[in-house]
Amino acid sequence: MTAPDPSPHRLGRRHLLRAGSLGAGALGVGAASVGLDRSLRRRGAETGPAGDGPAPHAAAVIPFHGPHQAGIETPAPAAATFLGLDLREEVDREGVLRLLRLLTDDAARLTRGQSALADTEPEMAAEPAALTVTVGFGPGLMERAERAVPDWLAPLPPFGIDQLEERFTGGDLLLQVAAEDPLTVSHAARMLLKDARAFTRVRWVQPGFRRSPGTQAPGTTMRNLFGQLDGSANPRPGSDHFAKVVWIDEGPFTGGTSMVLRRIRMDLDGWDEADRSAREQSTGTRMDSGAPLTGGTEFSPPDFTQVSANGFPVIGEFSHVRRARGVDEGEHQEIFRRPYNYDEAPPPGSTALSEAGQIFVSFQADVLGQFVPIQQRLDALDLLNQWTTPIGSAVFAIPPGCAEGEHLGQSVLE
Amino acid sequence: MTAPDPSPHRLGRRHLLRAGSLGAGALGVGAASVGLDRSLRRRGAETGPAGDGPAPHAAAVIPFHGPHQAGIETPAPAAATFLGLDLREEVDREGVLRLLRLLTDDAARLTRGQSALADTEPEMAAEPAALTVTVGFGPGLMERAERAVPDWLAPLPPFGIDQLEERFTGGDLLLQVAAEDPLTVSHAARMLLKDARAFTRVRWVQPGFRRSPGTQAPGTTMRNLFGQLDGSANPRPGSDHFAKVVWIDEGPFTGGTSMVLRRIRMDLDGWDEADRSAREQSTGTRMDSGAPLTGGTEFSPPDFTQVSANGFPVIGEFSHVRRARGVDEGEHQEIFRRPYNYDEAPPPGSTALSEAGQIFVSFQADVLGQFVPIQQRLDALDLLNQWTTPIGSAVFAIPPGCAEGEHLGQSVLE
Ligand code: HEM
Ligand code: HEM
Repeated sequence: MTAPDPSPHRLGRRHLLRAGSLGAGALGVGAASVGLDRSLRRRGAETGPAGDGPAPHAAAVIPFHGPHQAGIETPAPAAATFLGLDLREEVDREGVLRLLRLLTDDAARLTRGQSALADTEPEMAAEPAALTVTVGFGPGLMERAERAVPDWLAPLPPFGIDQLEERFTGGDLLLQVAAEDPLTVSHAARMLLKDARAFTRVRWVQPGFRRSPGTQAPGTTMRNLFGQLDGSANPRPGSDHFAKVVWIDEGPFTGGTSMVLRRIRMDLDGWDEADRSAREQSTGTRMDSGAPLTGGTEFSPPDFTQVSANGFPVIGEFSHVRRARGVDEGEHQEIFRRPYNYDEAPPPGSTALSEAGQIFVSFQADVLGQFVPIQQRLDALDLLNQWTTPIGSAVFAIPPGCAEGEHLGQSVLE
Repeated sequence: MTAPDPSPHRLGRRHLLRAGSLGAGALGVGAASVGLDRSLRRRGAETGPAGDGPAPHAAAVIPFHGPHQAGIETPAPAAATFLGLDLREEVDREGVLRLLRLLTDDAARLTRGQSALADTEPEMAAEPAALTVTVGFGPGLMERAERAVPDWLAPLPPFGIDQLEERFTGGDLLLQVAAEDPLTVSHAARMLLKDARAFTRVRWVQPGFRRSPGTQAPGTTMRNLFGQLDGSANPRPGSDHFAKVVWIDEGPFTGGTSMVLRRIRMDLDGWDEADRSAREQSTGTRMDSGAPLTGGTEFSPPDFTQVSANGFPVIGEFSHVRRARGVDEGEHQEIFRRPYNYDEAPPPGSTALSEAGQIFVSFQADVLGQFVPIQQRLDALDLLNQWTTPIGSAVFAIPPGCAEGEHLGQSVLE
């Protein structure tokens, strides 16, 4: 896993070896069980005349157990649903722990292609398709579990660009359910909700998508709905650098991280009216290759000192990448972004052609020290803001992974 | 194309040869250009260290031109969006023709991986991913084009089970945009809407999904959100039988067909409470293999005369399949079903765990002679009705395909 965004089903032996030598094998993120042999492919009993097996991603298993939760460092699959749940009034510490045991048990089973305990549809669980279930805690859950709420586990400070809607904001418990197949995601999310129902109410549901498995070459970065390559500057999964940016290394959440989830509406109609040059200026990157406007490849560092013939900086001072990097403030924080697209029916009565955007998801060891300064800079100034509006926001504490026999959050809530 | 539901990207040479010998090659549905060689795979300039090309479905092209429109007999890909549009008041016959020329032009370009004329994002069109754009006419469009509205092109008769909502019903113009990749679908739908905007208003948008490419073995039938194999009894694409069931063979719509689109809510919470046997009784088919309860494989004909030890019919008289087949009424109509799943956020304030169901889509030469009697029987009696509720409905006339230089609907509106 040296590439920023490899699709799990394309990870071949050669690739795994390379990943192993870089230390990803020790991370417990499970790439090793993802590169499946053709011989391991399941064949449906009712295989029709075409007679070939399904693609290897159908049977791909990402191990649920390990030092970190899956669904963070593991490659982002094609489909995801984010569920924000609120604990029912009557649920106490014991209830929270019971709920977490149930969810852990379901997630462990579903991610290896077995049906959840209460499930009477084993066929729907049969293709795990690299399923991951990632659980996060809001402040409300920590309180109910009678444990200290970390100071950073709180709503973000308000930003001038925000137009937050209550129905996409906050939550006591986060479930990120993701797989290479949307039917697998639907089914798994429903099984988890069934068990959670006695303990929680649904606060929001946000389904999202990336390109379907195999549509992009493995190791390339996804395009978002603006057509931009989105994720280029991310720390590389499997690297020590990634570990430093993402994993918390002290206190009860050691081995965990924080998740910021922002629902950001993207004005595609307005974007269409901007010409190519305005689009590239807004981020400081090229639309075709994702390279910085100062040249190189998608992964080259931008050169903010370069000026054009008439003396203007090639990458403008208000560009998204320059502002996000913080060079002008003499600071540089990093986060790991793992967003999904949404494109839904415009609300009834609207004249918009689309209701679309990004479920912006970032992981970082320190929300206040990493995410917030970046968002503050972008809030103050960022050409991209012209076409983007945050309409939902939530912060969750992601507990570390758990070993077999344990439940998620066990160490944190002990 | 001998299988009911093959994924285009898995159609290998061997398969195409077989399909050709069965006559599918002559149908102009384009399977021949779908089985792409590895050597034809595009490689992104910024291919990362994983270094492998994208899966062949990314570059798959389904020819737009031909005697029939694509998106009907061609394999149903992973993602689809259905758009119901209404003509603006001021649009007259000339306007309708201009709109159809624009849409035809866009569709021809986008389906072969070229950007639409007004599009400044060629990168977003670069992976056609078996894109098809299928256009249908509501009665309003025929009137505006000053042509006779066929008697069958009208809202369906009301059914007792219907709980239709205006916001999912009717429409002057239908666009079915479908591909193996949801980003390709989003982009294509948006480009078409951009051109249509001066002529139409959006009435409804219904995005839907099937399993992602490769998740099922090619030639197998998809599972819907109830976990049922859905599509088993369909006429086989490429067969003479299919042609008889689907294509209109006289009058202005010769080479075309009719589409019934019903948005059908599926009560997944209620379904969960039914035991396996109740589920199987409701359709008359097995949950695991899709075979009729009287035995055989998914494709075996049900034996309605078989009785159990205690004298009851093995496939109950009220089962979906028996009612749909019409054996007890001594009649048997057929349709070709090509549905998509939807699973969205429950409406705000709802206590439901999901807002999910099926975008039921069927094609048939004769709505009144084929679809309506089936729906009437199911309306009168069908165990499956306990968990399904039609909440939207529309009928469209699908004009035949067009040749290069022509536009869709040309022969019909001449
Ligand atoms: C819909 C909203 C957004 C869009 C479309 C967007 C798009 C982009 C694009 C195209 C890039 C350049 C390529 C890359 O490195 O990924 C980028 C970089 C980046 N974005 Fe965003 N972004 C959005 C929101 C945000 C938000 C909310 C944050 C954090 C508060 C953020 C932080 C960053 C960072 C840190 C970088 C990397 C900068 C660097 O070091 O080069 N972005 N974004
Ligand atoms: C959400 C709603 C529906 C569900 C979940 C559903 C499910 C099924 C299933 C599981 C089968 C058996 C396997 C197969 O042949 O595909 C089937 C068959 C069939 N269904 Fe439905 N169906 C629905 C709605 C409808 C509607 C609205 C119609 C038409 C009015 C219809 C017409 C048929 C027909 C004609 C068959 C084939 C019967 C045969 O000849 O064996 N279905 N359906």
